[in-house]
Amino acid sequence: MPLTPEQQAEIDAQRAAPRQTLRAVSEGMEAHLYRPREVLDHGFVRVIDYMGDDSAIVQAARVSYGAGTKHVSNDEGLIRYLMRHWHSTPFEMCEVKFHVKLPVFVARQWIRHRTANVNEYSARYSILDREFYIPAPDALAAQSTTNNQGRGAVLEGAEAERVLEMLKSDAGRAYDHYEAMLSQDGQQGLARELARMNLPANVYTQWYWKTDLHNLFHFLRLRADAHAQYEIRVYAEAICEMVRDWVPFAYAAFEDYRMGGATLSAKALDCVRRMLKGEEVTQETSGMSKGEWREFEGVIG
Amino acid sequence: MPLTPEQQAEIDAQRAAPRQTLRAVSEGMEAHLYRPREVLDHGFVRVIDYMGDDSAIVQAARVSYGAGTKHVSNDEGLIRYLMRHWHSTPFEMCEVKFHVKLPVFVARQWIRHRTANVNEYSARYSILDREFYIPAPDALAAQSTTNNQGRGAVLEGAEAERVLEMLKSDAGRAYDHYEAMLSQDGQQGLARELARMNLPANVYTQWYWKTDLHNLFHFLRLRADAHAQYEIRVYAEAICEMVRDWVPFAYAAFEDYRMGGATLSAKALDCVRRMLKGEEVTQETSGMSKGEWREFEGVIG
Amino acid sequence: MPLTPEQQAEIDAQRAAPRQTLRAVSEGMEAHLYRPREVLDHGFVRVIDYMGDDSAIVQAARVSYGAGTKHVSNDEGLIRYLMRHWHSTPFEMCEVKFHVKLPVFVARQWIRHRTANVNEYSARYSILDREFYIPAPDALAAQSTTNNQGRGAVLEGAEAERVLEMLKSDAGRAYDHYEAMLSQDGQQGLARELARMNLPANVYTQWYWKTDLHNLFHFLRLRADAHAQYEIRVYAEAICEMVRDWVPFAYAAFEDYRMGGATLSAKALDCVRRMLKGEEVTQETSGMSKGEWREFEGVIG
Amino acid sequence: MPLTPEQQAEIDAQRAAPRQTLRAVSEGMEAHLYRPREVLDHGFVRVIDYMGDDSAIVQAARVSYGAGTKHVSNDEGLIRYLMRHWHSTPFEMCEVKFHVKLPVFVARQWIRHRTANVNEYSARYSILDREFYIPAPDALAAQSTTNNQGRGAVLEGAEAERVLEMLKSDAGRAYDHYEAMLSQDGQQGLARELARMNLPANVYTQWYWKTDLHNLFHFLRLRADAHAQYEIRVYAEAICEMVRDWVPFAYAAFEDYRMGGATLSAKALDCVRRMLKGEEVTQETSGMSKGEWREFEGVIG
Repeated sequence: MPLTPEQQAEIDAQRAAPRQTLRAVSEGMEAHLYRPREVLDHGFVRVIDYMGDDSAIVQAARVSYGAGTKHVSNDEGLIRYLMRHWHSTPFEMCEVKFHVKLPVFVARQWIRHRTANVNEYSARYSILDREFYIPAPDALAAQSTTNNQGRGAVLEGAEAERVLEMLKSDAGRAYDHYEAMLSQDGQQGLARELARMNLPANVYTQWYWKTDLHNLFHFLRLRADAHAQYEIRVYAEAICEMVRDWVPFAYAAFEDYRMGGATLSAKALDCVRRMLKGEEVTQETSGMSKGEWREFEGVIG
Repeated sequence: MPLTPEQQAEIDAQRAAPRQTLRAVSEGMEAHLYRPREVLDHGFVRVIDYMGDDSAIVQAARVSYGAGTKHVSNDEGLIRYLMRHWHSTPFEMCEVKFHVKLPVFVARQWIRHRTANVNEYSARYSILDREFYIPAPDALAAQSTTNNQGRGAVLEGAEAERVLEMLKSDAGRAYDHYEAMLSQDGQQGLARELARMNLPANVYTQWYWKTDLHNLFHFLRLRADAHAQYEIRVYAEAICEMVRDWVPFAYAAFEDYRMGGATLSAKALDCVRRMLKGEEVTQETSGMSKGEWREFEGVIG
Repeated sequence: MPLTPEQQAEIDAQRAAPRQTLRAVSEGMEAHLYRPREVLDHGFVRVIDYMGDDSAIVQAARVSYGAGTKHVSNDEGLIRYLMRHWHSTPFEMCEVKFHVKLPVFVARQWIRHRTANVNEYSARYSILDREFYIPAPDALAAQSTTNNQGRGAVLEGAEAERVLEMLKSDAGRAYDHYEAMLSQDGQQGLARELARMNLPANVYTQWYWKTDLHNLFHFLRLRADAHAQYEIRVYAEAICEMVRDWVPFAYAAFEDYRMGGATLSAKALDCVRRMLKGEEVTQETSGMSKGEWREFEGVIG
Repeated sequence: MPLTPEQQAEIDAQRAAPRQTLRAVSEGMEAHLYRPREVLDHGFVRVIDYMGDDSAIVQAARVSYGAGTKHVSNDEGLIRYLMRHWHSTPFEMCEVKFHVKLPVFVARQWIRHRTANVNEYSARYSILDREFYIPAPDALAAQSTTNNQGRGAVLEGAEAERVLEMLKSDAGRAYDHYEAMLSQDGQQGLARELARMNLPANVYTQWYWKTDLHNLFHFLRLRADAHAQYEIRVYAEAICEMVRDWVPFAYAAFEDYRMGGATLSAKALDCVRRMLKGEEVTQETSGMSKGEWREFEGVIG
């Protein structure tokens, strides 16, 4: 349970005090506000604030395209049209801010998405808590034998036990020593900005992370994808659930055109056309490398 | 009057329908929502949406700096500390979206601020209105004799009349021809994406413009400055009035540390120290160029 | 001819003085350096500087992916892999800087690509030249009857003549008045920052524009596309020719996976799979709207 | 010594093969190319490529400001003017790419500068080396008693020994277990993307980092500052030495106006003016808080 009673009380207080606003309101997102959705063993993601809704996307697009958009009869159709044609600026008109608690090695992947605003808890100013990510048994996987950056079968038996024992004991010892180095009891006490270097990458940190809907979709497409590392994918999936309730038309278009779609190369399109005409196309006659062909076969089923 | 009755009715309708939200609310900003503030002869700026308030800045900073911020006894003091020490990320946690109507030559300056989201009315899709910026008499200024990019005395008499007549008649003729080229009455009608090239830079366009508070302050420091061109400065000043009501602590800190402050070079600081010790410092003994020394004298009065 | 003899002499001088460097050198790009490639009636684009080559992409990727990349046997294969899998950061390691002369209405589209560095000639400081884009006869097109933001058939006969006459005479008169307003002969002379507002959007401006290869590819995909406005597409196509010589492997991958490729939605992929199994799929049974279906038919031929 | 003989041989080979180019060349920077400058116990920074020199800044500015810039008699004067007046775009026309080896906790600070391109060695794909930052005795400091995010006196005697022993032994044990978990000797072997979570924040990583000169100066102002954490400051200082040789005029202006300068608030400027008129100003009569007044005294000496 990642929340203390004090934190829960604070959330309850925030949710108990609705106020009036003239801004666009998304009822679906109001239901999520402040509530942490638990992720991994000690993490969470919760939405702190949002700006705009499906209508805000349409409104911005109608300024862009003026009378030209009147053709499209309704909001949903216009949103699908914008997504299909990569008109990204209307989606940038929605903004969202999350509070996330996550292991440092996940944070290091996440931060590579640069078009966002971030305030991370500082281990120079403050002392980190004794909380470490220890994988659940079914997330403890072997190195993939086919994918250099992926994982394969779940570890079993004694090997799994050894790994968990190492992760737990090393984290515990590192934190004990972190505290021992910081202690000012009978000694000077090491600077916090130095002591933190002893903590492993599965220690939890937290941050406020704010981005616009277009960039959030880009993040989700990469991180909610089946090839993303499991430990960041579960955060992305939790966010997907919130976005679905926030901007249902935009999210549905995102699912159809991005998450469920695929980009075919010129060569791949040529193969599809030939195959639809009845030609038997093989890797050898496709012009693709073996790797490409395998991926192509995965796409066209 | 830049608004049509239909537009005014739409605004009234938007302001007549308050809804409940659990998000942070700024009463000062709610009072501005949707209402256009008139700028120049046909322009306006109005706030369409906002995210966060002074407390959101503090809240984000406390995640960043954790217990370390507990020292600062109150929100205002913390906000001033953050501004003074260029801790910009907490200010990025607030976001605002404006609808702006402005002449194209102002839009061209404005768009150079890249860290923002923009949806501009498209003259490829749609037909622009017959609205042009014609300077008021007291804004019709001569080229500065000392500043290559500034303006000097107000034009007077016959010269002013000639200029206004040229601006008005050229704009009118350009628009007449724009319409004539577009017309499909007895002819094919030129493509909108081509016809627009005949319109001068004082034609009005409009856009939705969204940015975070840190980048907005950067924009305001440059564009509400006395050296900015008058025609963009009036927009910046109108926005300042709204921001003051939105985030009063942050805006006051911005005024003290940015708008009213000045950056002194190493040489200038050295001069100040010498002068405070009683030394008579001149341009020759300052180590500064004439231009720098003149600016330095302007700063220290 | 957009270049004066002085400009040509300057280019010749720059190209006559090779120097030694230890940096990566692209012979293909060296051949283009400084030489303007003419675009439209008075415009040009020329490369001023570049950083990196195909090897720099590979080198950066090998730091990212370490031993994992040793699998891919050669540079070309690795570059294709990176492009196919949207690994954009290695492409960001190449940078290029152009000097472009272009009509203002083209510049206004171009500047919407925010991830670039720009220094534009300032009409506040300086006086613009009397140069306007006047479309060639085969670029003078009617509004498209099917596409709100496109152009259709070429204008003919008297209508074409009328349009060209209006564009030329309005530009000429606007520039005459621009000069008359600026003149300090017997009058004060209007400020340059004001006088410029009389100039139409087909006046030429110029800028230095610098971006990385990943963002350049994004620009080229949108602006060298058949749906882009002709007047920006010709600049994009000129740049394509240079990039092809600069980073041949990366450009070939870009052509295959981006320019010649297409993104299919989940629904479209489902249709392809059904069609490959022999099913007769129609718009009605596809789940797609009419617009989507038409675009889908265009893709699969 | 951070370089292996193979790496040194590679550097020697790169430096042994000068090639001809027509681009701008900075002799000062050529001397640095590829050569690692050692930082901390196992780290380094070396420049891999660069674009532009002092002249490129001037050239870009002259396009921006056209004839207006002819006033300033020389390149150095113009560069100082641009820096003084925060005209940042000409500085963005220079670009530089570094290869950096650095501890993860330093990388985590560094990456917060978002306007840069980064390719980091991936611990999902590859296995990290057994290299950890262990502070030298004079860098092993106690927590500051006055500054929540700073360090104070150097640790001494037994406490220092205890800290070093903990850092070394924990790093060693963590790496032993990292290897044990990865091993496929008689077991499946944990996925690399999971095993890395056991490594502490003082393990070394490496990346290619590319940015423009304006953003680099911003980075250096914050990270070469006396208040920056020592472990990142030494990297910033090493980069300063290279930039000084690359763009000497720009670097000198940066030192005078940014590194050695200070921003005074409206209140502080008012105090300076009063003091220069002979008034005795105290914290009580200054209008500043105690913290501000202390900082102000530090600035005016």
